[in-house]
Amino acid sequence: MDGLTETRTESKEIFKGKIVHLFLDKVSLPDGRSASREVVKHPGAVAIIAADDEGKLLLVRQYRYPMNKILYEIPAGKLEPGENPDDAARRELEEETGYQCEEMKKVSSFYSSPGFSDELLHVYFTHSLISGKQHLDEDEFLEVYAVTLEEAEHMVEDHRIADAKTVYAVQYMRLRSLKK
Amino acid sequence: MDGLTETRTESKEIFKGKIVHLFLDKVSLPDGRSASREVVKHPGAVAIIAADDEGKLLLVRQYRYPMNKILYEIPAGKLEPGENPDDAARRELEEETGYQCEEMKKVSSFYSSPGFSDELLHVYFTHSLISGKQHLDEDEFLEVYAVTLEEAEHMVEDHRIADAKTVYAVQYMRLRSLKK
Repeated sequence: MDGLTETRTESKEIFKGKIVHLFLDKVSLPDGRSASREVVKHPGAVAIIAADDEGKLLLVRQYRYPMNKILYEIPAGKLEPGENPDDAARRELEEETGYQCEEMKKVSSFYSSPGFSDELLHVYFTHSLISGKQHLDEDEFLEVYAVTLEEAEHMVEDHRIADAKTVYAVQYMRLRSLKK
Repeated sequence: MDGLTETRTESKEIFKGKIVHLFLDKVSLPDGRSASREVVKHPGAVAIIAADDEGKLLLVRQYRYPMNKILYEIPAGKLEPGENPDDAARRELEEETGYQCEEMKKVSSFYSSPGFSDELLHVYFTHSLISGKQHLDEDEFLEVYAVTLEEAEHMVEDHRIADAKTVYAVQYMRLRSLKK
């Protein structure tokens, strides 16, 4: 025992939707008392930091219902059942932006919100884009932009870029530029 | 109309817990069709990038139930009802690590998982720590560590650090070191 781990004693499915799969569990705490834990199970997701020929970062501009805002984000999407993250990254990049790519490298993977969800986001980088045609899901509406690193940093400042993965992507591009 | 915005036509509360407040809404899409949207409403949260006298980064080691893993993360926590993020940052830093601080600056704020949650995370930086005493919530068990930037980068590589805010924090510290 490491003095930190909790043990599940009960699990109740509350809701199963298209994205959110919510459970209310009971756990035994390290000191033996019990507590409840709310968990949103998530299939995992991919996001792609894609730089075009001029070194510009691809962003998709889309409406985000939970915050009732239009945000600029790097291309991203959920894993399909049984789908490999590498394949999902290529699929989402092409679906959302129309671009395919020759090489893609895994940059990182991190949990979005470890307090209540197991969502793991796999992040990729590519700078070998090949033009193609966008093909969105039927309830997906978005526009594609390519911005310089300086523009992207400005968009973080004024909150047009305001989600964790894209703020991460802008930092990644800045670190990459400093290491060259 | 911007051709992207969705309009809510129906909203149904599915579950209200300690963290997760889940709604299943119906929306009218930009093209007039309808779709469902699952939304986890969240009170917002704060996270603190805290560097000690030696420039080491403070991390808390804690068990995260959703992924059944022990992770090292920067100190963080939810906003209390009506609480100002600045106050919450000082409160969480002190509760989780025992440290108070003289000055704290807001670094960024970003949405953790904009596809299904409105959780907004406010990130702060401080390097003027004052020692004190940890006082945790009664169902909270965690240990405090201070690691060098190089150690932190190594922990990102081997996934002991594996959540978005802490990966962001490590990049932030690296960028800060390069700008000096």
